[in-house]
Amino acid sequence: MHSFNDLLAQFSDFFQTQKFPATPAALYDPCEYFLGIGGKRIRPVCCLMGNELFGNLHPDVWNVAMAIELFHNFTLIHDDIMDKSDLRRGKVTVHKKYGEETAVLSGDVMLIIAYTYLNKIDTSLLHQTLTLFNKTATEVCEGQQYDMDFEKRADVKLSEYIEMITLKTSVLLAASLSMGAFLGGASNTSCEKIYEFGKNLGIGFQVQDDYLDAYGNPDKFGKVVGGDILRNKKTFLMLYALENANPTQKQELEMLLQTNGDDKVQRVLDIFEQVGVKDWALDLKKHYNDKALHALDEIVVTNGRKEPLRDLTFQLLSRDV
Amino acid sequence: MHSFNDLLAQFSDFFQTQKFPATPAALYDPCEYFLGIGGKRIRPVCCLMGNELFGNLHPDVWNVAMAIELFHNFTLIHDDIMDKSDLRRGKVTVHKKYGEETAVLSGDVMLIIAYTYLNKIDTSLLHQTLTLFNKTATEVCEGQQYDMDFEKRADVKLSEYIEMITLKTSVLLAASLSMGAFLGGASNTSCEKIYEFGKNLGIGFQVQDDYLDAYGNPDKFGKVVGGDILRNKKTFLMLYALENANPTQKQELEMLLQTNGDDKVQRVLDIFEQVGVKDWALDLKKHYNDKALHALDEIVVTNGRKEPLRDLTFQLLSRDV
Repeated sequence: MHSFNDLLAQFSDFFQTQKFPATPAALYDPCEYFLGIGGKRIRPVCCLMGNELFGNLHPDVWNVAMAIELFHNFTLIHDDIMDKSDLRRGKVTVHKKYGEETAVLSGDVMLIIAYTYLNKIDTSLLHQTLTLFNKTATEVCEGQQYDMDFEKRADVKLSEYIEMITLKTSVLLAASLSMGAFLGGASNTSCEKIYEFGKNLGIGFQVQDDYLDAYGNPDKFGKVVGGDILRNKKTFLMLYALENANPTQKQELEMLLQTNGDDKVQRVLDIFEQVGVKDWALDLKKHYNDKALHALDEIVVTNGRKEPLRDLTFQLLSRDV
Repeated sequence: MHSFNDLLAQFSDFFQTQKFPATPAALYDPCEYFLGIGGKRIRPVCCLMGNELFGNLHPDVWNVAMAIELFHNFTLIHDDIMDKSDLRRGKVTVHKKYGEETAVLSGDVMLIIAYTYLNKIDTSLLHQTLTLFNKTATEVCEGQQYDMDFEKRADVKLSEYIEMITLKTSVLLAASLSMGAFLGGASNTSCEKIYEFGKNLGIGFQVQDDYLDAYGNPDKFGKVVGGDILRNKKTFLMLYALENANPTQKQELEMLLQTNGDDKVQRVLDIFEQVGVKDWALDLKKHYNDKALHALDEIVVTNGRKEPLRDLTFQLLSRDV
């Protein structure tokens, strides 16, 4: 049994030994560059953790974890093109550094290489692993599409946002844990439970992310507090506020969404305060936290084996950065 | 045993019953649109033909053929973004019709769905099918990258061009035949031979394509004769001319590549004539035609089973459109 950090160190060692082909350099250098700028590696490590919940690490789990991390990075490279983002993890994005054509193609080949890693596992495990991987990959694309659709809509409902976030970010976390569990010999029921754990952890993580944008400690958070507000992002907080504001508050909020005054963040936070957004968000996070831990509780393995995942839940959902 | 056209009709029937999910429409409508604007379906039908060379059609071959056609269309959607092409098969390209963000994401999901089709086949056939599919998909990306690299270089050698064309277009034709053959129970040797057949057929097809641009019958060809010359495309013909021109001819050719005068096509064709490009291209096509048929000859099945592939070779390499 290992902690998240132990497994992160092990995965990082493996990850660093994996290389793209040398040529064509214009295709593979951007892949190496992007993987080299970091990332928290939460998903591949969750795959290892899901695996270790049921026994010793299976030799195939490294290839599945690698495939997951490549898939995740492929989505980031392409999302950055779609979102016209210049920076990712504080570094220049692939399309900014190498051009859009290269970013499209390097992302494509990274996805194909993800499948090449999946195809390294024991053939008896391949079909079921691919089934969940393909389903999840499709859902992540659908989530990204809904996210882009929502940017053009003024009437997005909180329930739609939760569905979008589930597809865009939670299902990959859930599937990472579940694929690891499957390789570890877990029953279908256990695979479903750990998936449920991961899905709720993922949604809770996003609630926390949205919460910290408004209420994080600016010294620790490392981002500008209120960045989402300035960019008119539809977050858990904003959507709740829009749905629960009285007519006057709603009118002011909608007016603020049209402006970019110096006091915009403070005025939006004032309305959040009036509508009770902060407490609601903390309750919502607790709701997903509890659902995740409940699913974990129901998995039939000795309690001690669950400790690293409980610690991870605490780390991710109680973080202030 | 069926001809190309018979199998094309069968594949088209299957193809039309396959649908993308309805939502999110902004993601899947562009996929339906692009598959609906046509295409010759050469690759999936080659997969069926490779399969039928060794026996009756295997039930799994439809899914592999479908995966191949989806993969091919995914590459076209993304290539059109990279090449900034407004038209494909006479219709508006996906990024022109729906925007670049959508074209990136719809291409992505089409690739993932290709893998979903592959995962429908008998699990005992999955690993080897995926191995060739992944290798081929990677090579196609590499070919596209070389193609883009070559556009920025003035010193591309004919040998490099052949390598690029092999990766960008021939290996997918080769792999389509070979995956079909594998599902048909062909031996490794037979799979390699049919791959060799397809690879040479694919290169020969490109020679013919380049040849027709310069020497096709404009009434039948359906494109402007000399279109490649006007766009300074590095084709088999141009690269041969540059490598075999005398210093005076080479100087004139390089000068013509810098200009866009009304007589550009004719003057380039004059130099092609002086250098003997036409006869060389016909010989080169014959070279690949013969190599393809030689590989086909060596496959140990009754001669009659090879007829549809011989007919296809004749159709593709002797076409004047």
